[in-house]
Amino acid sequence: MTPEATKGEFAFIDWLRRRTPAAARVVLGPGDDTAALNWPRDVPCLVTTDMLLDGSCFILAEAGPRRVGRKAMAVNLSDIAAMAGRPVAAVVGVGLPRSGGRVLAEELYLGLREVADAFGTAVVGGDTNSWDGPLVISATVLGEATPPGPVRRSGARPGDWLMATGTFGGSIRGKHLNFTPRVREAIALQAAVRLHAMIDVSDGLAADVWHLCEESGCGAIVRAADVPVDCAARELHDGKTPLEHALGDGEDFELAFAVAPADGRRLIETQPLQSVPVCHVGEFVESGLWLEENGARRSLAPAGYIHALD
Amino acid sequence: MTPEATKGEFAFIDWLRRRTPAAARVVLGPGDDTAALNWPRDVPCLVTTDMLLDGSCFILAEAGPRRVGRKAMAVNLSDIAAMAGRPVAAVVGVGLPRSGGRVLAEELYLGLREVADAFGTAVVGGDTNSWDGPLVISATVLGEATPPGPVRRSGARPGDWLMATGTFGGSIRGKHLNFTPRVREAIALQAAVRLHAMIDVSDGLAADVWHLCEESGCGAIVRAADVPVDCAARELHDGKTPLEHALGDGEDFELAFAVAPADGRRLIETQPLQSVPVCHVGEFVESGLWLEENGARRSLAPAGYIHALD
Repeated sequence: MTPEATKGEFAFIDWLRRRTPAAARVVLGPGDDTAALNWPRDVPCLVTTDMLLDGSCFILAEAGPRRVGRKAMAVNLSDIAAMAGRPVAAVVGVGLPRSGGRVLAEELYLGLREVADAFGTAVVGGDTNSWDGPLVISATVLGEATPPGPVRRSGARPGDWLMATGTFGGSIRGKHLNFTPRVREAIALQAAVRLHAMIDVSDGLAADVWHLCEESGCGAIVRAADVPVDCAARELHDGKTPLEHALGDGEDFELAFAVAPADGRRLIETQPLQSVPVCHVGEFVESGLWLEENGARRSLAPAGYIHALD
Repeated sequence: MTPEATKGEFAFIDWLRRRTPAAARVVLGPGDDTAALNWPRDVPCLVTTDMLLDGSCFILAEAGPRRVGRKAMAVNLSDIAAMAGRPVAAVVGVGLPRSGGRVLAEELYLGLREVADAFGTAVVGGDTNSWDGPLVISATVLGEATPPGPVRRSGARPGDWLMATGTFGGSIRGKHLNFTPRVREAIALQAAVRLHAMIDVSDGLAADVWHLCEESGCGAIVRAADVPVDCAARELHDGKTPLEHALGDGEDFELAFAVAPADGRRLIETQPLQSVPVCHVGEFVESGLWLEENGARRSLAPAGYIHALD
C-alpha cells in the first residue's frame, strides 16, 4: 500500500473493516455496496436518522470527536428507545474537514462504537466524505419493535398519568454529550405496563409533552413541584429558574410517557428501572398545556429548541 | 398557526406529512420518533447511506435543489441496485443554510420524491436542521434482497466475463444529476442469469472494476475497443481521450458485473434490459488490472474519485 493510498477513504474503510466484529444478524457488513441483515419474522423494522452539525448540535473543539461520535449514535438509540424498540444496526455518513480528517474519522468511529457496543448495535456501513465545510455526521439506526408493538406518540388520553424517567434541565453542562439512551428502561417499561404514548425528550420537556398532546389530540397539566429537576439546572445562574431550565432546555434524552393511573401507581411503587427513577409529573387532560404551581394553573408555552427555517 | 410557527421545522414536518401517501409496508411514517415498516419473512434487509455536500458532490447554485434532492435519493437506489435489491423505504437528514431553508427543504423533498416514487420507495422519516454551513443532505435507503440473495462484490472468478450496463464517461455534463438508478435492470439480470459479483460505478469504471477484483481476489482485463463510451465523454475537450473519461470519470451509476461466459453470451444475444444495452467489456483473470488496446496489454491504474483524508 502506497503512502498516498493510506490517506484515502478506502484505507479508512479497510481500517473500519478490521475493527468490525462479526454479529449474528449481520449477513454483510462494511465494504460492499450495501450492508445486509437477517430480519426476524413478524417483527416491525424501526428506522430513525439524526444529523449533527458542528457549531449547531455540538462544538467540535470543545466536545472532542469521541464525544461527538458517541452523541451521533446515542441520539438515534434514544429515538429507538422512545418506541420501546431494540436497536440492531447502524450506518453512518460523515462530512470531514479536509485537514486532519483521517484522525477525526477514527476518533468519531471509536466514540460511535462505544455506545453502539453497549447497546448491541452493529455498525454495518457508512459513507466517508471530505469537504471545505465543518464536520457533519449523520447516523441512521434500525431497530426491532418489542411486543406488543412500537409505542407511538398518539395514544395518550385524558386521565392518563404523565410520567418521566430521570431528571431534566441543564443538559448543556454535560449530559447532552454523555447521556445514556433509555433503551433498557423503555423495554422494561413496555414489559411492565401498557404504554399509551411515549417520546424521548430532545426538544425540551414542555415541548415534547406538547408533541404527545398534539399527536394524541388532548392536553396535559405539568405539576411544577413534581418535575424532577437535574442538579445541573441549578448551576446555570443565567436568570432562568431551575424549573424553567427543566421545562425548556432540551437534550435531556429521558422518556416522557402516558399510562393509565393504575399502571402509573404501580410504577411509582415498584420503581422497576433499577438506577433510573420514574416520576409522576402530571396528567393528560382534554386540551391545552398547563403548569400547576402553588395551587394555581397557568398556560405553559411549549418552548424548546426549534430549528428555524426562514 | 402563528406566522412564527409556520417557519419552524415542525411546520415543515406538517407539510411533509400532508404530502406522504400511505404505503402498504409502512406501519408508521414521518412524525413519530422513528418510522416502522413491516418486513417480509426470510428476506434480508439491505441498508445503505450516502451523504452529499454542497461544493463537493454538487454545486447547489448550478444544479438547483430539485436535482440535488433527486441525486441524494438516486445514489442510494443505485447502491441497492448493485446488490440486485428492491428499494423499500428511505429516511433523509438535511443541514440547511439558515437563509431560505424552508423553500430549499421543500424543493429538495420534491426532488427526492420524484425518483423515490418512480422506484416504489416510501420516504418515511428524516431530520431537518439549519446551520451556518453549506447544504448537506444524507439519505439512507432500506431494500429487500431478491432471490437467490444480495449480489456481493466478492464472487468474480478468473474466466468470468466482465460486463456492464449503459455507457461511461462525461457524467459531469449532466448524467451525474439525472441518471436512472439501474434497479429494474439489476433485478432483471438477477432473474436471467447467475450474477457472480456486481457493483454500481460511482468511483469510475477502472476503480470500481478494481474493487470487484480486490474483493474477489482476482484481476481483470478491460478491452479498450469494447468500453461503451458515452457521447458526453467526447464533448469535454480537456486533453483526456474519451476512453480516459470512460475509465476514470465516475458517477456513471451503471452496473459492472461478473458472470460465467455462457451466461454472458446469453445476455449479449438476448439483451434482456429493453432500453439499456449490456456490453461485454473484458474478462476476469488471476491478478492485476489491465487495459488491452490494439493487441497490446498494459497496466491500468484504478484511478477515479477518492475522498482524500489527510
